Amino acid sequence: MEFTAQQIADFLGGDIQGNPSVTVSDFSKIEEGRPGTLSFLSNPKYNQFIYESKASVILVNKDFQAEKEIQSTLIRVDDAYQSLALLLTLVDQTKPKKTGISPLAFISPTAVIGENAYIAPFVYVGENVTIGKNVSLQAHCSIEDGTQLGENVILYSGVKIYYNCVIGNNCTLHSGSVIGSDGFGFAPTDDGSYKKIPQMGNVVLEDNVEIGSNSVVDRATLGSTIIRQGVKIDNLVQIAHNVEVGMNTVIAAQTGISGSTKLGRQCVLAGQVGLAGHLHIADGTIFGAQTGVPSSIKKPNQTLQGYPAVPIMTFQRASVVYKNLPELQKMIYSMQKKIEELENKMK
Amino acid sequence: MEFTAQQIADFLGGDIQGNPSVTVSDFSKIEEGRPGTLSFLSNPKYNQFIYESKASVILVNKDFQAEKEIQSTLIRVDDAYQSLALLLTLVDQTKPKKTGISPLAFISPTAVIGENAYIAPFVYVGENVTIGKNVSLQAHCSIEDGTQLGENVILYSGVKIYYNCVIGNNCTLHSGSVIGSDGFGFAPTDDGSYKKIPQMGNVVLEDNVEIGSNSVVDRATLGSTIIRQGVKIDNLVQIAHNVEVGMNTVIAAQTGISGSTKLGRQCVLAGQVGLAGHLHIADGTIFGAQTGVPSSIKKPNQTLQGYPAVPIMTFQRASVVYKNLPELQKMIYSMQKKIEELENKMK
Amino acid sequence: MEFTAQQIADFLGGDIQGNPSVTVSDFSKIEEGRPGTLSFLSNPKYNQFIYESKASVILVNKDFQAEKEIQSTLIRVDDAYQSLALLLTLVDQTKPKKTGISPLAFISPTAVIGENAYIAPFVYVGENVTIGKNVSLQAHCSIEDGTQLGENVILYSGVKIYYNCVIGNNCTLHSGSVIGSDGFGFAPTDDGSYKKIPQMGNVVLEDNVEIGSNSVVDRATLGSTIIRQGVKIDNLVQIAHNVEVGMNTVIAAQTGISGSTKLGRQCVLAGQVGLAGHLHIADGTIFGAQTGVPSSIKKPNQTLQGYPAVPIMTFQRASVVYKNLPELQKMIYSMQKKIEELENKMK
Repeated sequence: MEFTAQQIADFLGGDIQGNPSVTVSDFSKIEEGRPGTLSFLSNPKYNQFIYESKASVILVNKDFQAEKEIQSTLIRVDDAYQSLALLLTLVDQTKPKKTGISPLAFISPTAVIGENAYIAPFVYVGENVTIGKNVSLQAHCSIEDGTQLGENVILYSGVKIYYNCVIGNNCTLHSGSVIGSDGFGFAPTDDGSYKKIPQMGNVVLEDNVEIGSNSVVDRATLGSTIIRQGVKIDNLVQIAHNVEVGMNTVIAAQTGISGSTKLGRQCVLAGQVGLAGHLHIADGTIFGAQTGVPSSIKKPNQTLQGYPAVPIMTFQRASVVYKNLPELQKMIYSMQKKIEELENKMK
Repeated sequence: MEFTAQQIADFLGGDIQGNPSVTVSDFSKIEEGRPGTLSFLSNPKYNQFIYESKASVILVNKDFQAEKEIQSTLIRVDDAYQSLALLLTLVDQTKPKKTGISPLAFISPTAVIGENAYIAPFVYVGENVTIGKNVSLQAHCSIEDGTQLGENVILYSGVKIYYNCVIGNNCTLHSGSVIGSDGFGFAPTDDGSYKKIPQMGNVVLEDNVEIGSNSVVDRATLGSTIIRQGVKIDNLVQIAHNVEVGMNTVIAAQTGISGSTKLGRQCVLAGQVGLAGHLHIADGTIFGAQTGVPSSIKKPNQTLQGYPAVPIMTFQRASVVYKNLPELQKMIYSMQKKIEELENKMK
Repeated sequence: MEFTAQQIADFLGGDIQGNPSVTVSDFSKIEEGRPGTLSFLSNPKYNQFIYESKASVILVNKDFQAEKEIQSTLIRVDDAYQSLALLLTLVDQTKPKKTGISPLAFISPTAVIGENAYIAPFVYVGENVTIGKNVSLQAHCSIEDGTQLGENVILYSGVKIYYNCVIGNNCTLHSGSVIGSDGFGFAPTDDGSYKKIPQMGNVVLEDNVEIGSNSVVDRATLGSTIIRQGVKIDNLVQIAHNVEVGMNTVIAAQTGISGSTKLGRQCVLAGQVGLAGHLHIADGTIFGAQTGVPSSIKKPNQTLQGYPAVPIMTFQRASVVYKNLPELQKMIYSMQKKIEELENKMK
């Protein structure tokens, strides 16, 4: 399908700068822009590419100021990234959706499947599972006994959900993610071995949660591990037993949250962050990459980094000094000697 | 099933404080305690909840001293966490176990399956595999040619075990864990590309090992990667080729052990720890979260943290100073100037 | 099969020291050497074992100098590790290869499969997939619609490849690896929730790429996430959307590369390294374990470590001083006091 810049600007409520009748039928990255495609500029790091881009139409923020001539037709919008999301979503929704239950799937006779489901070959659905309408279960997913899936849930191939878990509406789980495996609970015994604590709770994902590939959310020992609505979790993330992640919190790849820690709402955890167990993290906390968090954060809306997590500017400044440590140590020892000499002279 | 506090205290050898005839039929967390449930208090961080808990019965350690009145009946035991484990295990063992081999599984004709097995749909069992009695293989597990499984092994859905590996008795492997994939061995060549070193060894898990979801244990180049008896490994852990993990060592989530490193017995590795290759780590070593270990640890029973790993109190104290580095550097420069001035005056 | 030391030396172009007619029929590690086996010594850390080894033949580097008598026959070669690789590869190639398409696999009628394929039970091949000759797809692999696989591709059990991706010739993907899952792209909205950015691009693996178990390569938002030829990626690695990894770069376990970062050629990333997004990393950069990289690296061929990444010797020296920080801080405060006293005396 082909659209004119004018049609797109009208749809987005944006202002055109350039030729309104130029047409596009695909998307491109600004640095790889091709004629007939629509591109976007949101991150200022990429500003340089707009002057050379061959994209026919480029979405930009309202306040973008060109420093040179631009060949492309611009559409100025409040938020270029949000507008791009809107257009991509539209296109995405026109893709044909698969439906039907493959005869090569295994569905327990006691499971209840909502209407309009797609269930691929080799999917396993256990006893007393209930599944809402419009779900898509791709190949090799396994949903164990007693688990509930809401409406519009998408499980990409190879998702594993253990027994008695609850997945809300509009959740998307990527390949290899595991929901509801046993929490890591072992009691030491007198002979040095460990005795397993059976993990009797479950996992609850509320609505609109997305979980990345090969991430793991462990079931609670007692009660539930809870991922609140709107939470977005990236790949290879570890969520331990009895953790609670607050509404709309975002967790980047390879981060780990230890047992029983409660994360507030609207937090952002960058990649490879680690949180100790039994903590409370205030709403709106932002942790920079590779941060280690050994204790609770009580004041909301801070941006922290390092080990232990401190205000990010403090950490950044300290990091710059770090490499000078050997020289500083040498200076300290030499100064100490000089001070002694001075003191001796003064006696 | 319902039990009185007296029955539970008798079973555990504990002492009752409160009403011995109150009954419970379920478990609860102390902060979410409900009437008719049994809860426990082990971690002193949760002491505050015991005074408000609605749980009918609470297990506590013998030495717990109440600071206020408690509504619940207490059962005092040597170790509340161990006693809870015992009760949960009892309940867990009463759950009905699945048995039988699904006609939707693929079992090679040369495989030997012990009695009383449960093999779910879509399990793949390769040639010359031998499987002990009472195993449970859930959906989408794959056990490649020549691998041996002991008795009472539980593989949750989607476990992948490569060829010629050995899994001991009573091992539990969680979803998505991979045992026996190729070690990361490549020899550089003159044109800058890398030549793969075929990995001809295998993996041996001894008895009573537990492996978490999406963890990986690579096969040895030659010989075996060995996980000794009683080892417990959490989710998303990396064990490289030719590693050996000593008896009863515990490894938390997202930790990585590089090739050929030998870990002693009764070690504890917290989350996101990284060990270099070809190291020897003494028995009883404890590594704090996110520790980096570039060299061998010879003295046993130390608790270490940081990069490079140093005694944990040293690391903790240094961490506190870290954020002062910019200020300290400024002080050093200014002091140096003052010393020069003093020296000049003294000339 | 049995070979004499002479036959092996002739094949490798090496020089024999000891009995040329001794025979071997298997490999062993030098510290576990057994009569009748061939071992090797490449890493000097293992030099001590050569004097006690029972291996009949040991490959060593030309410049190896014995400090004591050695029982074994030595074969001196230019590079013992490369020579071992050559021998192991020879033996590996003699293993019988499985062929044939299992009737228990699901192959879409629109898929095109090259000759001489092995496709195991429970493999899922989607619509319009094209697969080159000599591929091996083990149990529970899933290849979604429109994806292309080159020749000689090996997918171990449970590999998941999303739609419209491209896998080059001679690529090997280990169990549980996921190629082409959605990049982590969400636009914040005014009510605090996040709106998903559909990820419309794909992943391209060029020829001779190896991907470890449970690693993830996300698809691009627009365009392609690209892994160039000869790249070797270890287990549990995260490659985010729109990343490009240059030719022959090697990435060890649990490392993560954030979105849109471009890695040069012949780089080496050790374990648990983290790179921020939108960076450019020069050719030949080497990052030590657990390094954090917040900004681009412009100068090629540096070896860096720490946070932020600095030359490795600088980092190592600073790390040694780190543990002295509390003492140094105390010294600084005490020196400041003394200087003030001196200054007062001088007034």
